[in-house]
Amino acid sequence: MRTLDHPARDEMRLDTVLAALADPVRRHIACRLNTSHHDHACATFELPVSKSTSTYHFRTLREAGVIRQEYQGTSIMNSLRKDDLDARFPGLLDAVFAAQDIEGGVAVLSG
Amino acid sequence: MRTLDHPARDEMRLDTVLAALADPVRRHIACRLNTSHHDHACATFELPVSKSTSTYHFRTLREAGVIRQEYQGTSIMNSLRKDDLDARFPGLLDAVFAAQDIEGGVAVLSG
Repeated sequence: MRTLDHPARDEMRLDTVLAALADPVRRHIACRLNTSHHDHACATFELPVSKSTSTYHFRTLREAGVIRQEYQGTSIMNSLRKDDLDARFPGLLDAVFAAQDIEGGVAVLSG
Repeated sequence: MRTLDHPARDEMRLDTVLAALADPVRRHIACRLNTSHHDHACATFELPVSKSTSTYHFRTLREAGVIRQEYQGTSIMNSLRKDDLDARFPGLLDAVFAAQDIEGGVAVLSG
């Protein structure tokens, strides 16, 4: 089975995590994975960007350690690495999600 | 007296704040302003970057709403807008500073 590279918990870098979460499309993906508690295939997200841009956003999240991507057949399934992130940088992800709610930032994706 | 533009509290954007804090030099500036509780002139920071890059980093922080910059004579004095950020995005700045401590990230600036 083909596997994708993920940083270990202690390899996660604050620079990279913050940069990954600074983008509204990537934050939308992370928020949705946080609220659904299920793995999701990339194609189910209906993002307002091209397929190649979408692939780039998922890869950026994976390489930062924000999400886990695993092949299931020909699909890549995505899940949030919340336990790992909470252990590495306590409170950070929750603060970002709370800020996202305050700003109502997902609205930028519905236009 | 010449003044510089700052976003109002409710104009602060999560995208911009996270992008501002994703850079280690800018995070170092914000952390230092947080621990000192005094205003500081740009020149006192001794950053490992050129003067023009330093000016860019301070401006990026100001435009995101992370710091306030005010002229005092010919110097620009900087202070952290912690109260404004805490009101706009509760817990975010503290989580970033805590993560910075965990990572020991200021070490990247001492090389």
